Amino acid sequence: MIVHLKNNVTTDEAAKLAVQLKAVHIKKPGQEVLVTPSKLQELDDSIMDKVDSFFPMTSDIQLASKDYRKDTREVTVGKVTIGGNTNNTLVIAGPCSVETEQQITESATFLSGMGIHALRAGCYKPRTSPYSFQGLGREGLELLAKMREKFGVSIVTEVRDATHIEDVIEFTDVIQIGAKSMYDHGILRRCGKANKPVLLKRGFGTTLQEFVQASEFILSGGNENVILCERGIRTFETKTRFTFDLCGVSFLKEHTNLPIILDPSHAMGYAYGVPDLARASVAMGVDGVLIEAHPTPRKAWSDANQQLTHPEFKELYGTLQKVAAAVGMKIV
Amino acid sequence: MIVHLKNNVTTDEAAKLAVQLKAVHIKKPGQEVLVTPSKLQELDDSIMDKVDSFFPMTSDIQLASKDYRKDTREVTVGKVTIGGNTNNTLVIAGPCSVETEQQITESATFLSGMGIHALRAGCYKPRTSPYSFQGLGREGLELLAKMREKFGVSIVTEVRDATHIEDVIEFTDVIQIGAKSMYDHGILRRCGKANKPVLLKRGFGTTLQEFVQASEFILSGGNENVILCERGIRTFETKTRFTFDLCGVSFLKEHTNLPIILDPSHAMGYAYGVPDLARASVAMGVDGVLIEAHPTPRKAWSDANQQLTHPEFKELYGTLQKVAAAVGMKIV
Amino acid sequence: MIVHLKNNVTTDEAAKLAVQLKAVHIKKPGQEVLVTPSKLQELDDSIMDKVDSFFPMTSDIQLASKDYRKDTREVTVGKVTIGGNTNNTLVIAGPCSVETEQQITESATFLSGMGIHALRAGCYKPRTSPYSFQGLGREGLELLAKMREKFGVSIVTEVRDATHIEDVIEFTDVIQIGAKSMYDHGILRRCGKANKPVLLKRGFGTTLQEFVQASEFILSGGNENVILCERGIRTFETKTRFTFDLCGVSFLKEHTNLPIILDPSHAMGYAYGVPDLARASVAMGVDGVLIEAHPTPRKAWSDANQQLTHPEFKELYGTLQKVAAAVGMKIV
Amino acid sequence: MIVHLKNNVTTDEAAKLAVQLKAVHIKKPGQEVLVTPSKLQELDDSIMDKVDSFFPMTSDIQLASKDYRKDTREVTVGKVTIGGNTNNTLVIAGPCSVETEQQITESATFLSGMGIHALRAGCYKPRTSPYSFQGLGREGLELLAKMREKFGVSIVTEVRDATHIEDVIEFTDVIQIGAKSMYDHGILRRCGKANKPVLLKRGFGTTLQEFVQASEFILSGGNENVILCERGIRTFETKTRFTFDLCGVSFLKEHTNLPIILDPSHAMGYAYGVPDLARASVAMGVDGVLIEAHPTPRKAWSDANQQLTHPEFKELYGTLQKVAAAVGMKIV
Repeated sequence: MIVHLKNNVTTDEAAKLAVQLKAVHIKKPGQEVLVTPSKLQELDDSIMDKVDSFFPMTSDIQLASKDYRKDTREVTVGKVTIGGNTNNTLVIAGPCSVETEQQITESATFLSGMGIHALRAGCYKPRTSPYSFQGLGREGLELLAKMREKFGVSIVTEVRDATHIEDVIEFTDVIQIGAKSMYDHGILRRCGKANKPVLLKRGFGTTLQEFVQASEFILSGGNENVILCERGIRTFETKTRFTFDLCGVSFLKEHTNLPIILDPSHAMGYAYGVPDLARASVAMGVDGVLIEAHPTPRKAWSDANQQLTHPEFKELYGTLQKVAAAVGMKIV
Repeated sequence: MIVHLKNNVTTDEAAKLAVQLKAVHIKKPGQEVLVTPSKLQELDDSIMDKVDSFFPMTSDIQLASKDYRKDTREVTVGKVTIGGNTNNTLVIAGPCSVETEQQITESATFLSGMGIHALRAGCYKPRTSPYSFQGLGREGLELLAKMREKFGVSIVTEVRDATHIEDVIEFTDVIQIGAKSMYDHGILRRCGKANKPVLLKRGFGTTLQEFVQASEFILSGGNENVILCERGIRTFETKTRFTFDLCGVSFLKEHTNLPIILDPSHAMGYAYGVPDLARASVAMGVDGVLIEAHPTPRKAWSDANQQLTHPEFKELYGTLQKVAAAVGMKIV
Repeated sequence: MIVHLKNNVTTDEAAKLAVQLKAVHIKKPGQEVLVTPSKLQELDDSIMDKVDSFFPMTSDIQLASKDYRKDTREVTVGKVTIGGNTNNTLVIAGPCSVETEQQITESATFLSGMGIHALRAGCYKPRTSPYSFQGLGREGLELLAKMREKFGVSIVTEVRDATHIEDVIEFTDVIQIGAKSMYDHGILRRCGKANKPVLLKRGFGTTLQEFVQASEFILSGGNENVILCERGIRTFETKTRFTFDLCGVSFLKEHTNLPIILDPSHAMGYAYGVPDLARASVAMGVDGVLIEAHPTPRKAWSDANQQLTHPEFKELYGTLQKVAAAVGMKIV
Repeated sequence: MIVHLKNNVTTDEAAKLAVQLKAVHIKKPGQEVLVTPSKLQELDDSIMDKVDSFFPMTSDIQLASKDYRKDTREVTVGKVTIGGNTNNTLVIAGPCSVETEQQITESATFLSGMGIHALRAGCYKPRTSPYSFQGLGREGLELLAKMREKFGVSIVTEVRDATHIEDVIEFTDVIQIGAKSMYDHGILRRCGKANKPVLLKRGFGTTLQEFVQASEFILSGGNENVILCERGIRTFETKTRFTFDLCGVSFLKEHTNLPIILDPSHAMGYAYGVPDLARASVAMGVDGVLIEAHPTPRKAWSDANQQLTHPEFKELYGTLQKVAAAVGMKIV
């Protein structure tokens, strides 16, 4: 249950109530909020004088639920806003990894030239083998910051584990939590205290229920700027890298109040399928798409198969605008 | 390997070669075709004087492969053709089951009134429980035939098992093979000898490789009119009925020469998600979509949750035309 | 709900009640039984004078449920009985396919020499490609019958689709319904009228609920001799052919009244893992195991990788007896 | 490729070679080891005078591979050793979480009284909801240390994320990495530098390849004491909590050199199935089992459904010894 306390309830009083109700306490002076386990369906009369309003919930999808807020939350990424009444579909693009200054500059030049606002590239790669390229780390973050300064793009980059989260928060505009880190309490709780938007990717073995519950760790920490990202789940089908769960996206649109961004590149794993899947993503009427593009995909240091060339990306981008218009959205 | 024999090779000679090569023999007087196991990569010199051309293959996706035919095959359903250079996206619609003459007439009236060419409804329901409604059987087929006569629509209906396949072939325009029957050799082989289009649905536990190989049973029987249908696979996610595999659709578009129709209704299992998923389906640039609509879904005898009302269908239909146009296709 | 009618209720009266209750009617003169959809939880007073006893059910697992019968049903295969209070674990062994008279004779000689009672081998192979060996068909059935006559073994062989089910019923002792045919109403309904035991394999994409419901088609047809067989489900893991669902077996043991036989050979797909998995199967305390063994696996016409050699089988067989003893069971 | 350098190669020289070969460098004075990406299949002649021996590999399963070491590595947990030639099967038991001093004392008293050497209980619970019990944290670790002192048991407890790994390493005997943390580079790399055994659980959405590759992060850090733990994967089947992948265990036994411990409690999720599955686990001939038992499961603060009562555990324990004996192993 989500409990909004009255204006005159102090943070200290709220903290005591939180202990009493075994609730998570979101400190917002003037509007303290408690979130109890969802099992709690009724409040005791004795505390009702401190309660402004309350929302009984059917599961631990609480702050993210449409039963709590009917509208989609607005989240601002640099100069653009998604969610709410904006009808904006944000295109985030860039290479899988920051490799060299030349490579990332080439990407940023091309993408900002096309009007793309958000540049994505990884510096801490969650590779499954210790014997592959692991990312440039802090050096990569500094290169991304340079690109922001030079080209005015917002930066979206991934935190891999809790040991370098402060670095990522320092340099990025949007903190990306990757599929393999989605259950990481160290990351989730720290993001709850950050004042930057968080792009939370669904784990490939993660149910929708668990996925949204992971966002609750951030929301209940006080950070309301969470974007959900579907990027494919693992199934028995191996001809493609993952299985893009657009039924799940329909569920998220119907039941949660968070903006949704789709990542067809990681879902498919092969560049040939990305344009069709990106168009299908935009046709879903979601708040954004994330597309990997690389100056020379063949030579990429990671995920070489799935990144579009710049000409391919350019051609796709034009058609995305048409599809967005067909469903009443606007590419930003 | 697919082997096209020379014009002057007789059916009898071809049959002998088939035995020699352990091949399936497709009898086409004037152009006999053999299909050997894909392991065979070279032909012996001794038979080359009978061979017109040959296509070594990398897997038992052979007749359906883009390595054999680069273009998508054309299939004609009643008055409309899909595949080839048509850029047509066929909308097939109707209720899950034929229930009563009144119900199916109401459906046919509404859908034909909207310009829909193909009416779908089941008469032999592959229910998982013997204690549920099993379909009207032949009585249902007769009602569908009545609708065709009255409204000029083509009929798409499902064969559940080999015991009633002759009835289905007699009455239907398109033979639908359902997800649970997709491995049924009795059905597949009989369809290979039928001269009607076959809509082959992917089993929900079926890999893309096996799915396309099932089509090979029909194609190698001599029936070239096969349409593939993705309708959702079974994964760990249970908030939706199945997981719609659009990455798989990208694979099929890239690697096979068969038209593809998508079924968002069965994938999602809930009406609320069908419009978004139907638009995403059309944005994939495929050859058709199959959408369940029922005069009064709440009272449907099967799959009540996933069928659209007629007003919902009407609203969706308008937007499908816009999305189709955005990707260079035309709704028929 | 399962309804046992009183002794004096005639088959005709029962049939009328069946229509009234939308129930399946199992004709057993002297003890007519009706099975209604499980939604029905109460009976109308007006018919209680015809009712001997009734069992409300929570799902359409009805006749197979422990809520209906607490004990495991007994099923007799040739000279041996499993289930009930027998504590018997039946070993069914043999090659994947009948290939030649020499091969199957070699198998039967070896296995009967070791005291194996039940010989398995397929004649109608549910191959996923039309370009592979499809089985010897009726010729194979005749060879199996010869083995029964010569060596006194019971025969277990598979029906692939409804077109040849009469042949299989004529020749076999146990009708095996394969994983790919498990939803085939044509087969299931015919088996409900057969008076031979049915070994029903779980489809690899089939939930436990659907699997047991498939057995209800047979049980509600009047054939009580159904054995459930777990043989691996399809998951994201591809290093092994399938994933052996022993948690599911625990569920079946707890909730159903049918004997259970496990098939580690198809689950694993590689001979190296079969001995450990066969021992684990027996340690589960189930009613049988099904193990593939071939005189010369390397040369097998199907499933070459997963079949044990005869020496490997012999060594395994000795350890199975020890494991069975450790869990209070006896290998037969 | 794994490269063993000659005795006379110094750490500095090895470090230079590591850079040259893009290899991970395991510093072992007197026997420096390099591990290159597995793509490298040949060494240049110019460095062969520094090479003692080398092992080309077919995948990034390298240090853990049977192609590198044929025998299973020995790992010592307190007073007992598993792996190698020991034929020991270690039973690790205890409650899901440390809840109170009374509760964990009751557990430790019972289990040490039965001769159990290793006590498991969690202090940092990787819950999927922020509104559930999250574990006692460091206070729990201190209680576990008290149990070790009082009862002489070894402690097995879980690290949830990198923020508290130093605490876990300080207090535990075996560092357990949970299924949800299995990709956490922060944890894996730190464990590579720890001198305590690591029990690495397979993620429920993790392939066998990725699972073993996670162990490579630890092994290549220099810690050779890694134990693999299968605890169930996520599949379409939801009647049980997870699907226990014993086929995968066969793969691990065949292809890796690491000891293996199985966790039937988490796989099943329901106490009723744990005894059969624990016996099946032991019948697999593995190096250990991990079983949850709680003084009063009904009242447990987490995973209440799957924990055995103490009498249930006692009964099971006796039968595990029999099954172990039947497969040539010994319970320790």
